[in-house]
Amino acid sequence: MILNGYETANKIKEELKKEIECLKQKEIYPKLVVFQVGDNEASNIYIRNKQKACESVGIIFELVHYKESITQQELENAIEKKNQDELVHGILVQSPLPKHINELQVFETILPSKDVDGFTSYNIGKLWCHETCLLSCTPKGIIRILKEYNIPMEGKHVVIIGRSNIVGKPLALLFLEENATVTILHSKSKDIASISKQADILVSAVGKPNFVTKDMVKEKAVVIDVGINRVENKVVGDVDFEHVSPICSYITPVPKGVGPMTIAMILENVVIASKNK
Amino acid sequence: MILNGYETANKIKEELKKEIECLKQKEIYPKLVVFQVGDNEASNIYIRNKQKACESVGIIFELVHYKESITQQELENAIEKKNQDELVHGILVQSPLPKHINELQVFETILPSKDVDGFTSYNIGKLWCHETCLLSCTPKGIIRILKEYNIPMEGKHVVIIGRSNIVGKPLALLFLEENATVTILHSKSKDIASISKQADILVSAVGKPNFVTKDMVKEKAVVIDVGINRVENKVVGDVDFEHVSPICSYITPVPKGVGPMTIAMILENVVIASKNK
Repeated sequence: MILNGYETANKIKEELKKEIECLKQKEIYPKLVVFQVGDNEASNIYIRNKQKACESVGIIFELVHYKESITQQELENAIEKKNQDELVHGILVQSPLPKHINELQVFETILPSKDVDGFTSYNIGKLWCHETCLLSCTPKGIIRILKEYNIPMEGKHVVIIGRSNIVGKPLALLFLEENATVTILHSKSKDIASISKQADILVSAVGKPNFVTKDMVKEKAVVIDVGINRVENKVVGDVDFEHVSPICSYITPVPKGVGPMTIAMILENVVIASKNK
Repeated sequence: MILNGYETANKIKEELKKEIECLKQKEIYPKLVVFQVGDNEASNIYIRNKQKACESVGIIFELVHYKESITQQELENAIEKKNQDELVHGILVQSPLPKHINELQVFETILPSKDVDGFTSYNIGKLWCHETCLLSCTPKGIIRILKEYNIPMEGKHVVIIGRSNIVGKPLALLFLEENATVTILHSKSKDIASISKQADILVSAVGKPNFVTKDMVKEKAVVIDVGINRVENKVVGDVDFEHVSPICSYITPVPKGVGPMTIAMILENVVIASKNK
C-alpha cells in the first residue's frame, strides 16, 4: 500500500489555509523569508516549490538572494535584520552554502522562535527534552504520515539508515518519543542488510538510487524512502521500488512521498511560529 | 577483563591536578558550585563524593543548599548570580529537585559555558553537530574508558538499554561519532534479549538489579553497567555480574566502574570551563 505524501500534504495544506484565514482576521500575516546564496540548480527547484506551497495556502514568501561572494558576517547581519523584523515569522537558509561559509554558525544565527527548519541548538535541545518546539521538517513529516495512516510505532523496531543532523538523528529522537526501538545505521556500519531486515519500519536517508534492495527488507515492513536522487532527469528515491514494494505492507513513493510532507511541515511551522508570536 | 573505572579515573585526576597547578600559576582558580535543594539521602552521598573529588585535585568546591520550600524563581535567581560570578567556572544542580520545581527549566538557566553537566539545550545542540562543548559526564566517561582500554568502536553494534536525556540519548550520539551502529532499547521495547544479544558493546542504564542476565549477552561482548542500585546497603549495577562476567570480553564493575569515570569527567569539564574563560 502506498503512503501517499502528496495527498496527505494537500489535506494538511487545506487545514493550514483555514488557520491562516483566521490569523489574517487577527491581522497576523504569516510570512516566510528564505535566504539563498549562489545559484545551485537543485536549490532553485526546492525554493520554487516552497514558494508555490506558501502562496497556495496564503503565506507571504520572500526570497533574499545573495551572490556566492557574500561573507559570513554579511549573511549573518542580513539574517539578524529578519530576526528583528516583526512581520517575519519564519526564516530558512537554503543549503548548501558556499564553502567559505560556516553553515552551522549561520543556522545558529536564526532566532529559535523563527527557526522553522528546527536546526538551531535551542530547538534541538527542546526536541531532546520532549518539549514542544519547531521540529525539523522531514522527520516531523515522516512521523505525521505514519500517524495519518494509523501505523503503530510503539514497541516497533525502527531502523534508520543515515545519521544526518537534519534527518537521521532528529528522526531517531521522534521515534523514541513514539516508544519505538530505534537503530541507526550509516556508512561505517557493518552488515547493514542483516540489521535492516529486522526492521518493522525501515527508513532510508542515504541518497543513493537502489540502495535498499529486496533482500534488505523484512516481509510486511513499512518502508520510508527519504532519498531524492536525480537519475537521467528523473527523480528517484533510495529504494528499489519495483522489487521492494510487493513485499512490504506500506511504502512511500518518490516523488509524492516524503518530499511533499516536508514542505507541508515547513508551512505548518510557519503557522506555529506566527501563532506563538 | 575488568574495565577499572576507579584506576582510570585516578589516572585522569592526576593529569587534571597538573593542569590545575598550571592554571593557578595564571591566577585562574577553578571553582565548582553545586546547588542542592532538600535533603535527599542519595544526593547527599553524590555531593560529598563530588566535593572530595574536587578537593583531591585542587578545584574549589562550594555547596549552595536550599530548603525544599524554595520557589522556582528564587532558585533561578540564585543560579543567575553564579552565572555572573567571574570566579565560578562550573555550575551543577543536583537532581532530583522537589516536584514543584521545573527541573528542565532550572538546568536551562545555567550559562552554557558553565554547564559542566552538559544539560542545557545549547550544549546538547553542540553535541548534536559534533562541535566541542561541555559533554554530559556519564556518556563522556563511558567513551573515555573504552578509549583508555583501546576497545574499538567503529563499525561495532552498540546496544544501549535506556533512553534518558542524561545517559541514553547523549551516549547514542557519542557512539555515532565513533562510527558505531547504535540501537536504543527501553521499557517499551519488545524482545529486548534478542536485540541485546546482537551487541558487540552492551550498555545498561536501566536502574534495576540483575536486569541484564547471561542470556541477553553475546559471547565476548563488552558490557558497560551504568546502574547504581542500592540493595541491602550494598550498591550494585544492572548486570548479573557473577554470571555475565565469565562470558564477556570486558565488563565494568559496580562500584568502581562508570561511577568514578562520571566524577572524573565533571572535574575535567570544570577544568575545560576554566580554560575557556
